[in-house]
Amino acid sequence: MAPAGYGDKVEGIHAVLAAARAGRVNRLYVDRGRKDRPDVTGVIDLVGRERVQIVDDVRTRASTDAPQGVVAECRPLSALSLDALKETTDAVLVLDHIEDPHNVGAVARSARAAGVGGLVVSSRRAAPLSAAAFKAAAGTLEQLPVAVVSSIPDALRRLKDLGFWVVGLEATAEQALFGLDLLTEPVAVVIGAEGQGMARLTTLNCDVLVSIPMAPGNESLNASVSAALAAFEIMRVRNASRGRHT
Amino acid sequence: MAPAGYGDKVEGIHAVLAAARAGRVNRLYVDRGRKDRPDVTGVIDLVGRERVQIVDDVRTRASTDAPQGVVAECRPLSALSLDALKETTDAVLVLDHIEDPHNVGAVARSARAAGVGGLVVSSRRAAPLSAAAFKAAAGTLEQLPVAVVSSIPDALRRLKDLGFWVVGLEATAEQALFGLDLLTEPVAVVIGAEGQGMARLTTLNCDVLVSIPMAPGNESLNASVSAALAAFEIMRVRNASRGRHT
Repeated sequence: MAPAGYGDKVEGIHAVLAAARAGRVNRLYVDRGRKDRPDVTGVIDLVGRERVQIVDDVRTRASTDAPQGVVAECRPLSALSLDALKETTDAVLVLDHIEDPHNVGAVARSARAAGVGGLVVSSRRAAPLSAAAFKAAAGTLEQLPVAVVSSIPDALRRLKDLGFWVVGLEATAEQALFGLDLLTEPVAVVIGAEGQGMARLTTLNCDVLVSIPMAPGNESLNASVSAALAAFEIMRVRNASRGRHT
Repeated sequence: MAPAGYGDKVEGIHAVLAAARAGRVNRLYVDRGRKDRPDVTGVIDLVGRERVQIVDDVRTRASTDAPQGVVAECRPLSALSLDALKETTDAVLVLDHIEDPHNVGAVARSARAAGVGGLVVSSRRAAPLSAAAFKAAAGTLEQLPVAVVSSIPDALRRLKDLGFWVVGLEATAEQALFGLDLLTEPVAVVIGAEGQGMARLTTLNCDVLVSIPMAPGNESLNASVSAALAAFEIMRVRNASRGRHT
């Protein structure tokens, strides 16, 4: 499978600014009513006026609810293979059945903030890397390497061959995510969809299942919150481990 | 200031189900096209048919984009005073200038999952406890005690008088949130708005400022992610402390 590019449409001021900084905006549509606002003129200067078209209402071209006056057509980003991802990072988050682009964007943002170097998403579902995901990611999808795979279970097997430990977040697991020493090793943490959790075949391909401890009477967390807790726990355990060895 | 009630309008299937379980739905509007779906009939049975009105499109009565076929008019919940909050919990999150109801709802959900027993929000801003907040909270705002205050700095002073340590999340603080021993004491963690951070007067009223360590090149986290990390760090540090003492 040759994964298609992604991120060819970017909307919202932060996301468009990041795409402009990455030099990949081919055409920028700007609302007439917003073209003189400082944040918007900053983007226009970066993109170059010859690529800018002032329009009456960018919302007719937008796929998000609030494009904030800017819609950009971009040179797509290229998805990485898992092998290429391994060359760039030793910590990735794998999203299993997470389809809401807001969640995907929020996960990208938390992953990048915590120093987690890559995402693995499925190509089976409706475009998870849509304009809405880029908007929620607030620019972080520009720099975060992403692998787009046709099968999550197959991807987990390949990640294991590449030397990653595969850790699945599973609400019923006895072992806790917090303090898991394994996170100091090359690691792929799998996040399932809210409520639904990981698919059965995904679970079967995990080396270890861990849960996020919760107060009694609570059943689930938002998937992007689970992902943020996992990403920052990787950072925390690794920093603690470095502290112990120096 | 006598805080008004909140939560008099609830939309979305999970949020309405939670309000119905709490016995506070006075009137339930249901989309004709969804009235026979199992999740909706469950809510109707709980509310009682005499309180249900079938309509052609509940969206005309809704204030969220996707009410999922159900809009409930409810007996409002009562906000607590800070003194009453102190009687129920020794860990609260204080939201400073966080106005997006989705964030407020997401914070409530994470707080409850982590066993943080209360929220403090400002009454100065546009209703942070709107139907959108209840929807994002996925039912957790029904059980989570909330204090609504007219001034966050005044509230922090009162919380100190009541024996809480006030810990502010500040991106530039040198001390890290992770592993903060103070979290074992009665504690109020203050979360500022994304980008903007805490207001100056709020910052001045904190006992300690801590930051969430981030990978280089990252500037900010979504406020609801910061809040989730803080809430679960309180749980983690307290569990670790209990482990040390047994």
